[in-house]
Amino acid sequence: KAPAEAARRDGTGRGGRAAMAAAGSDSRQRAAELFGWLVAPVAPGLFLARHWERAPLLVRRGDHGYYAGLFSTADFEAALRGGEVHFGTHLDVTSYAEGVRETHNPSGRALPAVVWDFYQNGCSLRLLSPQAFSPTVWHFLSILQEHFGSMAGANTYLTPPGTQGFAPHYDDIEAFVLQLEGKKHWRVYSPRTDAEVLPQFSSANLTQAELGEPVLEAVLEAGDLLYFPRGFIHQGDCLPDAHSLHITVSSYQRNSWGDLLEKLLPAALQMALEEDVEYRQGLPMDYLGYMGVANSDARDARRTAFMEKVQSLIKKLVDYAPIDAAVDQRAKSFLHDCLPPVLTQSEKAQSVYGFPARWQDGGPCDVDIRITKDTEVRLLRHGIVRLCNEEAGVMLYYTTENSRVYHKEEPKFLEIDPEYTDCIEFLLSSYPNHISVDTLPCETLEDKISLATLLFEKGILTTKKPLVQV
Amino acid sequence: KAPAEAARRDGTGRGGRAAMAAAGSDSRQRAAELFGWLVAPVAPGLFLARHWERAPLLVRRGDHGYYAGLFSTADFEAALRGGEVHFGTHLDVTSYAEGVRETHNPSGRALPAVVWDFYQNGCSLRLLSPQAFSPTVWHFLSILQEHFGSMAGANTYLTPPGTQGFAPHYDDIEAFVLQLEGKKHWRVYSPRTDAEVLPQFSSANLTQAELGEPVLEAVLEAGDLLYFPRGFIHQGDCLPDAHSLHITVSSYQRNSWGDLLEKLLPAALQMALEEDVEYRQGLPMDYLGYMGVANSDARDARRTAFMEKVQSLIKKLVDYAPIDAAVDQRAKSFLHDCLPPVLTQSEKAQSVYGFPARWQDGGPCDVDIRITKDTEVRLLRHGIVRLCNEEAGVMLYYTTENSRVYHKEEPKFLEIDPEYTDCIEFLLSSYPNHISVDTLPCETLEDKISLATLLFEKGILTTKKPLVQV
Amino acid sequence: KAPAEAARRDGTGRGGRAAMAAAGSDSRQRAAELFGWLVAPVAPGLFLARHWERAPLLVRRGDHGYYAGLFSTADFEAALRGGEVHFGTHLDVTSYAEGVRETHNPSGRALPAVVWDFYQNGCSLRLLSPQAFSPTVWHFLSILQEHFGSMAGANTYLTPPGTQGFAPHYDDIEAFVLQLEGKKHWRVYSPRTDAEVLPQFSSANLTQAELGEPVLEAVLEAGDLLYFPRGFIHQGDCLPDAHSLHITVSSYQRNSWGDLLEKLLPAALQMALEEDVEYRQGLPMDYLGYMGVANSDARDARRTAFMEKVQSLIKKLVDYAPIDAAVDQRAKSFLHDCLPPVLTQSEKAQSVYGFPARWQDGGPCDVDIRITKDTEVRLLRHGIVRLCNEEAGVMLYYTTENSRVYHKEEPKFLEIDPEYTDCIEFLLSSYPNHISVDTLPCETLEDKISLATLLFEKGILTTKKPLVQV
Amino acid sequence: KAPAEAARRDGTGRGGRAAMAAAGSDSRQRAAELFGWLVAPVAPGLFLARHWERAPLLVRRGDHGYYAGLFSTADFEAALRGGEVHFGTHLDVTSYAEGVRETHNPSGRALPAVVWDFYQNGCSLRLLSPQAFSPTVWHFLSILQEHFGSMAGANTYLTPPGTQGFAPHYDDIEAFVLQLEGKKHWRVYSPRTDAEVLPQFSSANLTQAELGEPVLEAVLEAGDLLYFPRGFIHQGDCLPDAHSLHITVSSYQRNSWGDLLEKLLPAALQMALEEDVEYRQGLPMDYLGYMGVANSDARDARRTAFMEKVQSLIKKLVDYAPIDAAVDQRAKSFLHDCLPPVLTQSEKAQSVYGFPARWQDGGPCDVDIRITKDTEVRLLRHGIVRLCNEEAGVMLYYTTENSRVYHKEEPKFLEIDPEYTDCIEFLLSSYPNHISVDTLPCETLEDKISLATLLFEKGILTTKKPLVQV
Repeated sequence: KAPAEAARRDGTGRGGRAAMAAAGSDSRQRAAELFGWLVAPVAPGLFLARHWERAPLLVRRGDHGYYAGLFSTADFEAALRGGEVHFGTHLDVTSYAEGVRETHNPSGRALPAVVWDFYQNGCSLRLLSPQAFSPTVWHFLSILQEHFGSMAGANTYLTPPGTQGFAPHYDDIEAFVLQLEGKKHWRVYSPRTDAEVLPQFSSANLTQAELGEPVLEAVLEAGDLLYFPRGFIHQGDCLPDAHSLHITVSSYQRNSWGDLLEKLLPAALQMALEEDVEYRQGLPMDYLGYMGVANSDARDARRTAFMEKVQSLIKKLVDYAPIDAAVDQRAKSFLHDCLPPVLTQSEKAQSVYGFPARWQDGGPCDVDIRITKDTEVRLLRHGIVRLCNEEAGVMLYYTTENSRVYHKEEPKFLEIDPEYTDCIEFLLSSYPNHISVDTLPCETLEDKISLATLLFEKGILTTKKPLVQV
Repeated sequence: KAPAEAARRDGTGRGGRAAMAAAGSDSRQRAAELFGWLVAPVAPGLFLARHWERAPLLVRRGDHGYYAGLFSTADFEAALRGGEVHFGTHLDVTSYAEGVRETHNPSGRALPAVVWDFYQNGCSLRLLSPQAFSPTVWHFLSILQEHFGSMAGANTYLTPPGTQGFAPHYDDIEAFVLQLEGKKHWRVYSPRTDAEVLPQFSSANLTQAELGEPVLEAVLEAGDLLYFPRGFIHQGDCLPDAHSLHITVSSYQRNSWGDLLEKLLPAALQMALEEDVEYRQGLPMDYLGYMGVANSDARDARRTAFMEKVQSLIKKLVDYAPIDAAVDQRAKSFLHDCLPPVLTQSEKAQSVYGFPARWQDGGPCDVDIRITKDTEVRLLRHGIVRLCNEEAGVMLYYTTENSRVYHKEEPKFLEIDPEYTDCIEFLLSSYPNHISVDTLPCETLEDKISLATLLFEKGILTTKKPLVQV
Repeated sequence: KAPAEAARRDGTGRGGRAAMAAAGSDSRQRAAELFGWLVAPVAPGLFLARHWERAPLLVRRGDHGYYAGLFSTADFEAALRGGEVHFGTHLDVTSYAEGVRETHNPSGRALPAVVWDFYQNGCSLRLLSPQAFSPTVWHFLSILQEHFGSMAGANTYLTPPGTQGFAPHYDDIEAFVLQLEGKKHWRVYSPRTDAEVLPQFSSANLTQAELGEPVLEAVLEAGDLLYFPRGFIHQGDCLPDAHSLHITVSSYQRNSWGDLLEKLLPAALQMALEEDVEYRQGLPMDYLGYMGVANSDARDARRTAFMEKVQSLIKKLVDYAPIDAAVDQRAKSFLHDCLPPVLTQSEKAQSVYGFPARWQDGGPCDVDIRITKDTEVRLLRHGIVRLCNEEAGVMLYYTTENSRVYHKEEPKFLEIDPEYTDCIEFLLSSYPNHISVDTLPCETLEDKISLATLLFEKGILTTKKPLVQV
Repeated sequence: KAPAEAARRDGTGRGGRAAMAAAGSDSRQRAAELFGWLVAPVAPGLFLARHWERAPLLVRRGDHGYYAGLFSTADFEAALRGGEVHFGTHLDVTSYAEGVRETHNPSGRALPAVVWDFYQNGCSLRLLSPQAFSPTVWHFLSILQEHFGSMAGANTYLTPPGTQGFAPHYDDIEAFVLQLEGKKHWRVYSPRTDAEVLPQFSSANLTQAELGEPVLEAVLEAGDLLYFPRGFIHQGDCLPDAHSLHITVSSYQRNSWGDLLEKLLPAALQMALEEDVEYRQGLPMDYLGYMGVANSDARDARRTAFMEKVQSLIKKLVDYAPIDAAVDQRAKSFLHDCLPPVLTQSEKAQSVYGFPARWQDGGPCDVDIRITKDTEVRLLRHGIVRLCNEEAGVMLYYTTENSRVYHKEEPKFLEIDPEYTDCIEFLLSSYPNHISVDTLPCETLEDKISLATLLFEKGILTTKKPLVQV
């Protein structure tokens, strides 16, 4: 049975861990299961139909261990002890009391003695992007991102009893609040105006006077989930008797139809200009005389004709809109945003990361990557590559050399001989099945092996069996 | 009778000079007449219907004096003697022989001794933007630009007998070649492909082998006109027995429907995003899986739905497209491109430029600009101002402080109290009639006088009678 | 008799005009005479010994016409009428009343009606760099600069009766105040501290309370001169009954020994590092332990040795200091700062600017610049060229293509074949005598003629007789 | 006995490990011992007198294990396996054969399979800055840098048998070649010219034809040392039967007297300009006429006077040269270059890094840093802080928050109340002894504790006993 199904049924976190561990399966399937586990016992379809971008959802699971292993105060402390957490960059120290929201970040490294002192004095701690410090959170988000088709990020919040760390506000992302430890009292409010429904940008801090009645109010306990769409105002505070640790998983920042159109429209116009002389024809010599805001109330047949012409040209853009190419541009950006994949032990053994080439007795041994026509290969994950046709050539973007730190690495890509395009598409369409190198649709066996070796060396391809039996 | 009509009838240049001198008239009318004179005896309507952006036109006038006074080799020399012509910036020395196009610009100032030496050795001389050196060309273009509603520029070309200065090529502007002195043999070729019809960008230099048969071949004599649309390849060379001086008047660079859409579409999308939640809704989670070039041949109902959604959103942009505002943005750019107006003596007397405030006998006299409720005013020209609603406020852009040198000055504007908007529109709609300050539609007389004084001081308003009788 | 001598004797401005007109003479001589006229009847030697950089000088000449022709309110008005004076860039409108100094510049062009209105309301007018509008001031400064060996600048000030335009302050330049029209009451104060003697930078506006007793107080009348060194605080105000127009000529901004050292020291160190291994040897491993401000009171033999070592290395820099090269670098900067020369009619006739090449009857005539071995040539002025040895080659910097507007043109130079260096030096040392081209110290006659022609074409060389007799 | 002494005597690497472990001792002493071990059995004094910056030194130790534990091919492999080694940034793949030097870096991560494949094909591998991957190398260099008073860097080189990876060249650093594994045949050549003795910049790759006879030729074996000063050309190649792994430790890049003067001279001139009017006096008006390269051979009393004046001003700079401040500026740069300290277990326990504040049972415990008047403290190392007087205030620069990656962090500093300056100096002068907080020379006990706590929290101060007994 699928992990999410299992989770739904028995109400434990087992499903999540199972989904994360199920390395052999289809990565898309695995991502879907993890998402299912995230919203379980609500069925994903139901969630999408009723809540996603629409309405908050509260899931009380009564299972304090549901998220066990994902992130804990112990992990928080380990991050601090690692010595690479810096105030401001990775950790914010905040407070919100009597309507005043403050940030108390000193400069430099965030060492435990200093951090816990702030906490003890009533400050909240927000660890930004815990995926940079916690392999589990990294693994978790790297799977989820494939399901969202949009960057999945996270912050964790540790709040002392009886305090609130942040002013009420709304965000520009879909938010999943996973209560990891303790309890937190939440209030969620509907968007106040049409313009604040699914907004493009986050709000400033709001005052209590600007809020109406909450549409949802609840105390979250460990194992519970609170989801709310972007635009929903929210605030959370701790009860006097318990601290709170939660992680907020976010996605769908700047991922709307409008964001697609932002890429698409200039490309469509460029295409139209190149292919359709009507777009290149000159404007009427006298148009400045009857067009313009000052003339907007004038009745003038020339105005009507001008407006109709413009409108017809806008509508005709549909014929030139390179929708698929614009999607590929978004995919390319998404791949740059992506976390690199986390490999299980067995995946490692089947990939270049586990390839046994090593130094031994004064020299390298097991160095040759012997991919042959019979080697069975597949992509490490379905979502780690994207082909894009660009002016400079056909580029294969990939995520395996990304960093855990957002955009620390430049976008990674290989320029691909156009005749290898079919091979890449073949690998994508065959996934999750392995195919033997021989079946790659390119001309010579040498080409097949060379392409497979290149992709293997970049960690993009794995082999069914480890290449070298040690 | 109108000057252009006169010119058409009697075939002399009288019409042009008349048009340029007719300061009292409506500037739009004057511009139309000058344009009529430019293409006479072809009627402007006929020209627009048959030739403009469509086909070359050759006008043989048999009147060597038609352009008399516009520009001559004497003016060319005077520019050189003025000492402000620099090689490269203002003057190009070129040659084209045996298929090789060369530029021979030295550095520094272009002094007559050096320039004429190049000429005597067979080089062509291209004086860029002669309007910076010749008040007549400046005046001529400053009037024409109002008719085109698009920047009117010019270059002059002086070519030694028996030579050619430039390789065949096409330009990105509508070109009017006015033969001023001597003769030139021209060949014009149709655009070679659909993509080269009304092109956005000029071509590189072409070889003779890349050309077909000319669609028009003729020897232009002084007083003749050759027009050809952008995209028409052309080359001109001198007969062995005569030099050539011509001026090419250009317009309509980047002035197409597509150029308007380039401003309009982002504004329309921005508006749609703000007003219509459909544009802010998230993309489907799985769209990267079935969209993209690699999937473009796939039959998938989700693809169809996705494409239809995008297309419907593009079409719906029509509802949000701020066409008038985009036109105002183009108008604002146009006003920055514009040459400043050239004033006749009588115009000067009625404007701040001729206001008699002066130093006399140890102090200023006639200083007070006494605009009263009865002062009759009008705009100096109709096309010298434009109101634009911008985020920062209502701005009145104007050309009177522009420079004769392209974009040497920043765009000039006055921030206008929104309640004065009606006054500006009233001034525009009353033009060319004078109105008394009292009739300006603002609240107090003080406001009326203050606004009129401000516009007068900027050279935007003229008075019916000189303000001070000297 | 020399013009300055004449001026000293008869007390009229004749001397200045004579000096400016004496084109045939040595430009250095002419500059010296103009300077003599500037300080006459004080002898230049006396001025330099007693006043220059030392003490203010008041010269009452009792000759209202002494500066006649240099600049007047009529010239001021003509500049405004020219239409190229812009507020802020070229003209400042200021006031100083009750201890408050204000600037009232509107934006845009400074038209007479607006400017005189400010004046009539009690504002002072400062026309910056009048040399850009007045050919006489341009001529005057272009001669003086050669005498100063440092840029000579100017501002003119027009002040209404009974007002003061500026707060007391001191400047970073040597100032010569030439009273052109009306009267002005001046107060000059000594530098207040040693640090303000010959300061590097101008002061902020000072309050009256910060001043002591003036060291000089006087009413300047037309024809009078007031000189004061940089660092002397000054303020001038108009008597109730007379306006004032004066021009302040300035020089010696950043022209001190220290400014020379600023260029020289890095070059000296560079040279020392290249030639003397002592500078390349490593610092003692332990020097951070006993050197540094915290150790400055410690008695430590190692400190003494370290300090002595550093001091000896500083002193030894003397051996490596490329003083002449650093002077050439300053000369190069100075030539970039210089105004271009103003030519008299006869100078024009002997130079490329008057070369009769011209367009006539359909073609150029008198084009050939026929410099032969017998042509007698000399530099137009001694101070218009400078040879500099640079890494990229030997460069001849020159001023003839400079602009009247400060640094509007890039530094102008010709790269010179090193074997022509002697020719340039020969031209410099022969000056003001003409030499025949044949005597130029280069190998072939062709080279001689080619070099002379190049320099003639750039306006650097003039011929004894006009090259072409028209 | 001191570790270096021990190493010298018994010829084992024990000394180095001992020096690195001797955390309790004086950090300066420890650094000196490590340096002693580096050159043992040559006495450091002898080394400095005879070899440092003077002549190569070969130390054959006959002890293959002398460097044991410092770095090995196993560490090399571990770095690769860590997945953070990128071609180009951290690892260069090179070859030098038949006079041709090539770099073969692919893009992206350097995974073992790919790297060893290059090696097996005869390429050399240069791991840049192994301190970023090896804690031992980091520790080693972080101690050495304090002895050098100048950044200590390193590269490691792994070369296949029978190959050479680099062309002969010289460097701009003092080089210590520590043979870690295998053997390498080295040839070292004296600087070819005076200008190449202790050069400021490294050479390009040289050809064999440009070399003379080596001044030293030897086969280095594991445990041996080869030192040569900057400017000594060198090349190393592997014998056919053995690979080679060595680490080159470098220091003294841009650390010469001249580099000090580069900071010192502008400051000295600035000071002189402010304090001595002689530097602010104007240059002679006529100096451009007799100074300059073109006049350098002229005999002219004015030249002599000018030169003497300049020379006297240069010499007088000695009186104004802020030597200690310039040293502090170098110290500040050095502290930015420094590796952060590596702490032993016991040091950790006595510092903020080991402070037991931690999360336990739902809240932080042991959070209070209870520094009292009796707490005994000292600096973690002597060389980790530097006080600098700057315009903005008194700054305490420190190294404890530097990164292992060169200049990845900005310079770290605390602004210090000037009255705490004595406390910092007291801490420096007391080191390595502990002092009780009470003895800090500032006014109140509160100040003492507050300063000590701040420094403790930044890892700068350690306590004699762990602050909390767990």
